[in-house]
Amino acid sequence: MTLKLFYSPGACSLAPHIVLEEIGTEWEPVRISLKEGAQRRPEYLAINPKGRVPALATDQGVITENPAILAFLAQTFPQANIAPVSDPFGMAQVNSFNGFLSSSLHPAFAHAFRPERFGEGEEAARAMRSRAPVAVAEYLQLAEEKLGGNEWIHGDYTVSDPYLFVFTGWAPRLSVDMTAFPKLQSHRERMMQRPAVKAALAREESATG
Amino acid sequence: MTLKLFYSPGACSLAPHIVLEEIGTEWEPVRISLKEGAQRRPEYLAINPKGRVPALATDQGVITENPAILAFLAQTFPQANIAPVSDPFGMAQVNSFNGFLSSSLHPAFAHAFRPERFGEGEEAARAMRSRAPVAVAEYLQLAEEKLGGNEWIHGDYTVSDPYLFVFTGWAPRLSVDMTAFPKLQSHRERMMQRPAVKAALAREESATG
Repeated sequence: MTLKLFYSPGACSLAPHIVLEEIGTEWEPVRISLKEGAQRRPEYLAINPKGRVPALATDQGVITENPAILAFLAQTFPQANIAPVSDPFGMAQVNSFNGFLSSSLHPAFAHAFRPERFGEGEEAARAMRSRAPVAVAEYLQLAEEKLGGNEWIHGDYTVSDPYLFVFTGWAPRLSVDMTAFPKLQSHRERMMQRPAVKAALAREESATG
Repeated sequence: MTLKLFYSPGACSLAPHIVLEEIGTEWEPVRISLKEGAQRRPEYLAINPKGRVPALATDQGVITENPAILAFLAQTFPQANIAPVSDPFGMAQVNSFNGFLSSSLHPAFAHAFRPERFGEGEEAARAMRSRAPVAVAEYLQLAEEKLGGNEWIHGDYTVSDPYLFVFTGWAPRLSVDMTAFPKLQSHRERMMQRPAVKAALAREESATG
């Protein structure tokens, strides 16, 4: 299967980027720089009409939305052991956590990064930017409790771990005090040790991707 | 398997509510009235620390987040034919659409229903309430295009259809002009013909649930 990941440096597409590195299959990275507005160009809108990253192009068509992409990669590469794909309840826990990240934690950040998406005006933007770090901290607290004494979110390493890693990386940009989340900090350090994480970060930080 | 669905009348928990009626398995409805603040009571927070509905209690534990619950029900009851569970790409399309609903369309509504979740103050609330119907209409347009000439979102009926039905039901509360979305309107009418939809709506509209 030929896979192409459309990603932007530092965006939430880092999660499937890391996962593709973990799997070690052949795939092609395609940089869609949000900073340059590349996600709004007609050639990308033809791939993802929503104008967002990530998008995963497969032999059968394009998949969008992180939780869907991550579950698909786990199912397509069961030998990579990145989700309990043969256990519906275990898989539901992975999908549930990923759904929480995409529908609660990610939007909380978006209110600081792109307040104009949710309401016009400087006063509204100020209110959202002031609320965002509080909401982010509340959601991170839920993740901290979920992690508990485990190394990884679901006990064993799964696709939820690189997805969580995206947001622990964003939190300092909102001046969220990460020392309040020692378990998430250790999780982040464990992630940084993984060769797949190093490889994905190196590609995203390079000039050309 | 004993299943319990924690739902609130009119909330997005209507999606798994309909799906459980479609499956026709034995299950127990548990009403958690958001209007009465029941989702913040300690006994419910013990079930779902996020204080949201829906939550699905199974023999193995609780599942939260609509896309995860819907995929789990489809996988657990393959004979109900409510998602292409044996086709990873087809399932990814279902998960992708459900992910879009939960992370884009649902939050767009939440800015009108609960602006204080995203920023304090009357000025910010006004800005969000004014932006919300525009964002909702943009997302509904994507759903209208995705539906295209099909009866159901993915061609065959899947769990994405009752989930979409939740939001076409909410749109009039934001004064979104649904005549701009004739395909979604027909979709809504088709849904209303289904006995499972009638049964779920009747339960939610009854006094006691």
